[in-house]
Amino acid sequence: MTAKPFSGVLVPALTPFKSNLDPDADALLTHCRWLLDQGVDGIAVFGTTSEANSLSVIERIGLLEHLLDNGIPADKLMPGTGMCALSDTVRLTQHAVEQGCRGILMLPPFYYKAVNDDGLFASYAEVIERVGNAALSVYLYHIPPVAQVGLSLGLIGRLLEAYPDTVVGIKDSSGDWDNTSAVLREYPALATFCGSEVFLLETMRHGGAGSITATANINPAQIRELYSTWQKDGAEELHAKITTTRRTYEAYPTIPALKAVAANFYGSPDWRTVRPPLVSLDADEQKTLVATLAGVGFEMGA
Amino acid sequence: MTAKPFSGVLVPALTPFKSNLDPDADALLTHCRWLLDQGVDGIAVFGTTSEANSLSVIERIGLLEHLLDNGIPADKLMPGTGMCALSDTVRLTQHAVEQGCRGILMLPPFYYKAVNDDGLFASYAEVIERVGNAALSVYLYHIPPVAQVGLSLGLIGRLLEAYPDTVVGIKDSSGDWDNTSAVLREYPALATFCGSEVFLLETMRHGGAGSITATANINPAQIRELYSTWQKDGAEELHAKITTTRRTYEAYPTIPALKAVAANFYGSPDWRTVRPPLVSLDADEQKTLVATLAGVGFEMGA
Repeated sequence: MTAKPFSGVLVPALTPFKSNLDPDADALLTHCRWLLDQGVDGIAVFGTTSEANSLSVIERIGLLEHLLDNGIPADKLMPGTGMCALSDTVRLTQHAVEQGCRGILMLPPFYYKAVNDDGLFASYAEVIERVGNAALSVYLYHIPPVAQVGLSLGLIGRLLEAYPDTVVGIKDSSGDWDNTSAVLREYPALATFCGSEVFLLETMRHGGAGSITATANINPAQIRELYSTWQKDGAEELHAKITTTRRTYEAYPTIPALKAVAANFYGSPDWRTVRPPLVSLDADEQKTLVATLAGVGFEMGA
Repeated sequence: MTAKPFSGVLVPALTPFKSNLDPDADALLTHCRWLLDQGVDGIAVFGTTSEANSLSVIERIGLLEHLLDNGIPADKLMPGTGMCALSDTVRLTQHAVEQGCRGILMLPPFYYKAVNDDGLFASYAEVIERVGNAALSVYLYHIPPVAQVGLSLGLIGRLLEAYPDTVVGIKDSSGDWDNTSAVLREYPALATFCGSEVFLLETMRHGGAGSITATANINPAQIRELYSTWQKDGAEELHAKITTTRRTYEAYPTIPALKAVAANFYGSPDWRTVRPPLVSLDADEQKTLVATLAGVGFEMGA
């Protein structure tokens, strides 16, 4: 049985590392608990913001099991499972479904460029058929600015037609509202999430499901509030406030900046650590960023 | 002790798959034996042409051990080990060095885009230091058309300065002669390989080490002959002939085309199989390609 599709605000949870660059499973658990306490509707562990592609398959499996073993509900989890190698994507997807995760977020294989829709269709189809589990819910992950390999409207339609009970949603991180609105118009049955809270209001006005957004790591409550009040007075003001926060930290590299804000919040310098090829913000940059955010009225957890 | 650097013509060996998409270790072994019989100087298993990024870590380790266990000399092997995740790259590099491979070819992590040289330097440095083995010889892999993440001249210089006994070569698959000639000029101590035989003559004339090229999967003897006769009469004619062969199959998607030619040579339709997101040539396309190559005077193994 396929689970009820996700809706609302989901967080591609940051993956904390120790100073030796090993994932810090307990710090991730603490962060996920905090996010759920703040009211988010789900956690998309192992997204782009999670540095998932800087983690091995074994590391991802270990982290996911640590969360589940310690009470993070599988019903709240949408792990990213799309890797370059078919065998890896099958393994991670199978594992996530067997662990009861409500859905998985699947990047297309992203090493080879200029691949065609037949090849991308086959990539998704092979995974879905090899996993062969009616409990699988796939959320497609369209993020051409990073993956370079994107999902065309035609490909989405073919996948929906072939696997209507399995392909239930999409995260559109194109940053291109024309694309998101086209997906919303063409495929109203799909749970469509914008990849940035900047588009949350418009996404909801056009029948979308919500947002899966990096910023929800540091600003979950306000973004969740916008989701629940989008039809009410004050939504535009809240949208503007949230957008200001995002634009402010976006002056820095996104993932290191979010980690620096989290490091300040958790009082843990290690939280700043990123894996190469990303570069951490240092203590001074962290201080400046936190102060700049305070200057526009933002403080994590406040 | 670092091994003597590679020189000559190396082959990023195609990875044959069975019809169920599993790697065919025996077919790969047969192909590697044939390539060495044809006189190539080394085999860069798990390159771009090998669909290495469509293979899991476990699959790569299994294939490499199968080759070594069956008599392919470690001294002839330069496996690709660069993956997106630091932990994976360390594991593959460690394994290859422990197995005695003469060198490894290392892609930078390629998921995150617009990363800076500090982050890429740290990526290579962490791997080299974690492997911590004096027998490690690293060949940098610059292939911006596919990886999108490239290696700047400045980064190459920093790596050479920091690890002069370990960073011994580079494969330049930029397809941009200006870049290759700049590498040759700036870093004469580096064993520089062009990524296409089309640049082999010029590479040799400027002090390069040779070529690591996809086409050597089907045309090893002629390309090897150009390497050994580049200073002799007839080199230009041989260069022109080899270039014609390449341009002819390049009218098709490279990897499926090379596999189709190999499938014809080995008399095995399964050899055409590629993993998604690539798409195999069908029997008719194979026939047309082989006939077109015959029309320009090329036949694999002839």
